[in-house]
Amino acid sequence: MTSNPNATFTLRRRHLLGIEGLSPDEIVGLLDLAEEFVLLNRQVEKKRATLRGRTQINLFFEASTRTQSSFEIAGKRLGADVMNMSVSTSSVKKGETLVDTAATLNAMHPDVLIVRHSASGAVELLARKVDCAVVNAGDGAHEHPTQALLDALTIRRNKGRIQGLTVAICGDITHSRVARSNILLLQALGAQVRVVAPPTLLPKGIERFGVAVHGDMRSGLADVDIVMMLRLQRERMNGSYVPSVKEYFHFWGLDEAKLRYARPDALVMHPGPMNRGVEIDSAVADGAQSLIREQVEMGVAVRMAVLDALSRTLPGNLPNA
Amino acid sequence: MTSNPNATFTLRRRHLLGIEGLSPDEIVGLLDLAEEFVLLNRQVEKKRATLRGRTQINLFFEASTRTQSSFEIAGKRLGADVMNMSVSTSSVKKGETLVDTAATLNAMHPDVLIVRHSASGAVELLARKVDCAVVNAGDGAHEHPTQALLDALTIRRNKGRIQGLTVAICGDITHSRVARSNILLLQALGAQVRVVAPPTLLPKGIERFGVAVHGDMRSGLADVDIVMMLRLQRERMNGSYVPSVKEYFHFWGLDEAKLRYARPDALVMHPGPMNRGVEIDSAVADGAQSLIREQVEMGVAVRMAVLDALSRTLPGNLPNA
Amino acid sequence: MTSNPNATFTLRRRHLLGIEGLSPDEIVGLLDLAEEFVLLNRQVEKKRATLRGRTQINLFFEASTRTQSSFEIAGKRLGADVMNMSVSTSSVKKGETLVDTAATLNAMHPDVLIVRHSASGAVELLARKVDCAVVNAGDGAHEHPTQALLDALTIRRNKGRIQGLTVAICGDITHSRVARSNILLLQALGAQVRVVAPPTLLPKGIERFGVAVHGDMRSGLADVDIVMMLRLQRERMNGSYVPSVKEYFHFWGLDEAKLRYARPDALVMHPGPMNRGVEIDSAVADGAQSLIREQVEMGVAVRMAVLDALSRTLPGNLPNA
Repeated sequence: MTSNPNATFTLRRRHLLGIEGLSPDEIVGLLDLAEEFVLLNRQVEKKRATLRGRTQINLFFEASTRTQSSFEIAGKRLGADVMNMSVSTSSVKKGETLVDTAATLNAMHPDVLIVRHSASGAVELLARKVDCAVVNAGDGAHEHPTQALLDALTIRRNKGRIQGLTVAICGDITHSRVARSNILLLQALGAQVRVVAPPTLLPKGIERFGVAVHGDMRSGLADVDIVMMLRLQRERMNGSYVPSVKEYFHFWGLDEAKLRYARPDALVMHPGPMNRGVEIDSAVADGAQSLIREQVEMGVAVRMAVLDALSRTLPGNLPNA
Repeated sequence: MTSNPNATFTLRRRHLLGIEGLSPDEIVGLLDLAEEFVLLNRQVEKKRATLRGRTQINLFFEASTRTQSSFEIAGKRLGADVMNMSVSTSSVKKGETLVDTAATLNAMHPDVLIVRHSASGAVELLARKVDCAVVNAGDGAHEHPTQALLDALTIRRNKGRIQGLTVAICGDITHSRVARSNILLLQALGAQVRVVAPPTLLPKGIERFGVAVHGDMRSGLADVDIVMMLRLQRERMNGSYVPSVKEYFHFWGLDEAKLRYARPDALVMHPGPMNRGVEIDSAVADGAQSLIREQVEMGVAVRMAVLDALSRTLPGNLPNA
Repeated sequence: MTSNPNATFTLRRRHLLGIEGLSPDEIVGLLDLAEEFVLLNRQVEKKRATLRGRTQINLFFEASTRTQSSFEIAGKRLGADVMNMSVSTSSVKKGETLVDTAATLNAMHPDVLIVRHSASGAVELLARKVDCAVVNAGDGAHEHPTQALLDALTIRRNKGRIQGLTVAICGDITHSRVARSNILLLQALGAQVRVVAPPTLLPKGIERFGVAVHGDMRSGLADVDIVMMLRLQRERMNGSYVPSVKEYFHFWGLDEAKLRYARPDALVMHPGPMNRGVEIDSAVADGAQSLIREQVEMGVAVRMAVLDALSRTLPGNLPNA
């Protein structure tokens, strides 16, 4: 392991709970730091000693192989001891379990907790109960900050900037923490953001985020630089109108014909895992304008940057030492 | 990683299968060693090199996120490569699987096996089949030695001693390996132990352990220094009388009113996970007299001490080398 | 960790997808290298730095505690960061998931993927989509190369050679990747191989492998040096004739009586996990002629040898760096 001579960026906060509240300087600092880790991850020897001797716990109340793996690789490459805890919330009263789990884990003196939970605000609640750093890996329909950061890094690497771009976020906005975090981040860095969705998948009051709202893909994609598709989260649509897959794909699925509404050099993104044939066609997902694979690569780098930046704010000794 | 200059205590046995058979000196030696790890765990750099290059396998035939995590953190902080194996026993003949599993794991040359099993005696049976150190992480209603050690460490740190204290162990004694191990340990160090439970939750012949038996909380808690509540294990009460939660809490649940039967400076413990509102009220669990969170912290330290002490008895080369 | 001064054997290929295509020199090179790891694994300090800073992902589309553990221990003893991913294939279109999963993992820049999949050819398909080394940990009824290598190592250590031995592979040949890989490897090193099975468990065209086919255990075991029993894979016999356990054991189960058909110094093997009382009797499985436990030990050593040999072919920088 070698130390990281270039990294000097410190996130002056203990937790990363959302994009909300991050300054543009903090966002850019994280993206710049992540660029170093992109290079490191492409080398044979991928380790840094940043988190050596530290304990990172991945606490996932919702299963997510992809995101958990990304955080696990990120932590291990920084030298942390990483522990995965998958906690089912089905059979227990959630609030109680969350606080008890937080207190129990905290007593084991972890240095970083990576938390995913199905309830908006649950990660922040947990963060108030522990002494260590907490990273939000997705809470309900609230925020998923590392996803927005990796999306921004991917855009910046391919377009050279974020300022002045027009980005269309398309599909299931209502159930998407990815949409929310991306709107906040992209606007903070000066992009124009549109949401493109049927009325049933638009949250009430979306206009207060300062986004343009489009009710069809033709107008929604006109002149955009980035088309960001969202996963149709049918598993979250309890009770409400669930569109048929065929119908959804016809009106809202991104295929080559609809992609031609956008700028010729428009690039396509998706947070994964994709429902091929539902919100996106394979020809587009695997096509020349797709950044989807690169997003995954940027995910590891961004998470290393977040862990690295937060680690410099970890106390020399914990409060009760 | 730094070496451990102070630790000189060696457990002169290959396995830790129970409190039974441990001398008071061995118990005190483990508690003293654990104190060092309490300090280490509160520092930023938490690693020792004791188990570096060694393989620790956590073999859990019963699921336990909390205990497994505690052993995993303990092993990793000592530098071991830790591997988790969760083995379902539902669909196989248990005895056969246990011996085959033991032989299979043994052939992979682990250095330490941490084993939990639903059958009393299963861990000792397994220990006879392997060349490495075995730590009992709970076998049926038999023993759970690291729980008793962490309880003793917690008491000693808060009361300054164990000798001469009066400890009430309350609730589901029948199904509790925690009760059994605690009775053995606390008596070995000179505490007076009482059990407080309804007749249906008292094992036959409990008197031979030399404990006083109380049939109600008022007399059972009178003048005690430590109130140790047990989890009501309704999932193990197959066929027998299962009390209703409401009724149980009324007569046996520790609330603030019942806690006043004990000494004013009495302290409250619970091995977790708690059934809040069943055997313990939240006001007590989270109150000023509760040591429940500290027990979890002591758990990691005690397990590091056990692993550290056992590691010094590991052979330089395994028998078949 | 110390480096490996003796190891100079390099597998001049990026993947290990099967025994097919390996030269006898490559096989012998792997077995010789594995001998070093047998010795290492019997020592207290079992680590090499071969894969230090590298990321190994165990990607198991079929559950296998035993094989996954063996690869996990092997990788960790070589210093790799090892990550386990168990992927259920039940609810998704398999081909799509496989390619998407491959692309996603590849973007995280692992160095080695260990892959098990229920479909023959799936591991090779995945290998074509990634930049890292891939080891086949079993694909359908196709190949399981590390099993054949560990079997060969076990035989060579006990018989001193493989050339000129007669080996009977007995039981469920149709569903067995173990049989296929063993036939290829043992023939490549000059052994005579027979298959002994009822017609319903013999794949069509087995004769083209150059093996003798025997329809009963008496003639099949006559004069053989090695009796290799296979697991009866009833779970894979969808739709076809499934023999009763009693009937199967009567005709095909290896007990002491049937073992006497073989040479007096014949040795017994089984890839595990065993169905005791189905294809093998406990008296034989645990008897003096059994090599079954040693096979497990050789498994870790062989997997370390494969990882070690492949690691020397890993590029200094990945293609897209």
